Amino acid sequence: MNHPFDTAVALQALGEGAFQGATSAAYANMVGPYGGITAATLVQAILQHPDRLGEPLSLTVNFAAAVADGGFEVRADPVRTNRSTQHWVVTLQQQGEVVVTATAITAARRTTWSVDDAPLPQVLSAAALSRRPEAPVPWIGRYDIRFAKGSLPRHWDGAESPAGTTLWVRDEPPRPLDFASLTAMSDVFFPRVWLRRATRVPAGTVSMTIYFHAGSADLAAVGEGWLLAECGASAFRNGFSDQHAHLWDAEGRLLVTTHQVVYYKE
Amino acid sequence: MNHPFDTAVALQALGEGAFQGATSAAYANMVGPYGGITAATLVQAILQHPDRLGEPLSLTVNFAAAVADGGFEVRADPVRTNRSTQHWVVTLQQQGEVVVTATAITAARRTTWSVDDAPLPQVLSAAALSRRPEAPVPWIGRYDIRFAKGSLPRHWDGAESPAGTTLWVRDEPPRPLDFASLTAMSDVFFPRVWLRRATRVPAGTVSMTIYFHAGSADLAAVGEGWLLAECGASAFRNGFSDQHAHLWDAEGRLLVTTHQVVYYKE
Repeated sequence: MNHPFDTAVALQALGEGAFQGATSAAYANMVGPYGGITAATLVQAILQHPDRLGEPLSLTVNFAAAVADGGFEVRADPVRTNRSTQHWVVTLQQQGEVVVTATAITAARRTTWSVDDAPLPQVLSAAALSRRPEAPVPWIGRYDIRFAKGSLPRHWDGAESPAGTTLWVRDEPPRPLDFASLTAMSDVFFPRVWLRRATRVPAGTVSMTIYFHAGSADLAAVGEGWLLAECGASAFRNGFSDQHAHLWDAEGRLLVTTHQVVYYKE
Repeated sequence: MNHPFDTAVALQALGEGAFQGATSAAYANMVGPYGGITAATLVQAILQHPDRLGEPLSLTVNFAAAVADGGFEVRADPVRTNRSTQHWVVTLQQQGEVVVTATAITAARRTTWSVDDAPLPQVLSAAALSRRPEAPVPWIGRYDIRFAKGSLPRHWDGAESPAGTTLWVRDEPPRPLDFASLTAMSDVFFPRVWLRRATRVPAGTVSMTIYFHAGSADLAAVGEGWLLAECGASAFRNGFSDQHAHLWDAEGRLLVTTHQVVYYKE
């Protein structure tokens, strides 16, 4: 039986960079699908494209409208192919309307001098923490999330507090990590404004960018292991906040840096 | 007489979202133009588009190839217009080839609860620091840059050191801040790998994302004033590093958070 993630990101190639997919009830959010699964589906389109060069290096996904439950068409076009990098323009449409725009870069990497300057945060192990029990929307049940710091407010009492969260995450049930699932996990954080204000205002991702520092060999080494993720924000201003996050494997190898601009009301 | 910046980002509207521009010797880099001026030109196209809604909220620019000196065509298409946000797909072409891809979001903002969580770094004032004297490439001469921390290495001796820089910046000669010039200044940092390794390897921006936290009234209030900018990196891995930066006005108002993925050799 397929893992629900594989079902959710499955695409049927229609030729010439076009793919047919459908939303999956297992990854439903309050309205439409979890943004992370939509982003993962775009990565999947690139990965399945016959002309692809290299592996994902960067991805920017702009959520132009709510994805409606049901079918959608993805177009992934390699608009420029260089010797070692390839540039993609991607769109997701429903009923002929643009719902998501994206750009991506894939790259054939060579081994160079390398160093990590973002050390793994020192927190309790996933085994020492308990799983978040409730899943108010289906997609949250698709992940085992264990908060080390900055969980959802216990009391929605408007008390201001720091906007940072550190959490462990893996697919539920466990599934070997790949670029698509890493993309989805990069969006696993609840809106920073909820934590910062202890007020549950309407909020949602408008644009998300992911830089992939890991290659497929690194992801294979993680397998079904835990990722540690740390997330914060710099500014909440007139309806929009930023969000910045790092995702490491349990050995401290940085896999991803990612950023969002998030809409919030009031 | 026009400020060199205005000359550099000047565009002639060709209709239906197409614009004609040309590179400017005043903003030349080692090869082709300074990436920041190219990004600013794309913002200028959006700002000049007759169907624009609101002000820049986010911008992602992907440098698919070196921009050649000479003319170019920009296409800026508002592919989805909502009640208060608008989604843009932008390309820059030369001789019919895609050279730059971009997406952007503009938004009509309303006043909401707001807070800044990125305090202004405490450094010497711009007046107490001296201007970087040399301009090895023309675009550097278009800025008054005063390093407070993390200047270029004095000795290219391969000694590893932290990748962070804090600097004051403004246009040279001074020019009132606007979205286009703020976009250009968001790319003002030299490659982090040069500082981290004290080795001047070939390096260049592959993709840059900017989140605009300021509105046009904030920018007008800055006028010709100094911006303080802080920049760092999290990972250098197999030919690519990330870069994250904040830009504030001198009163400590956060104007921009910005990120890059940067190619480096060896």
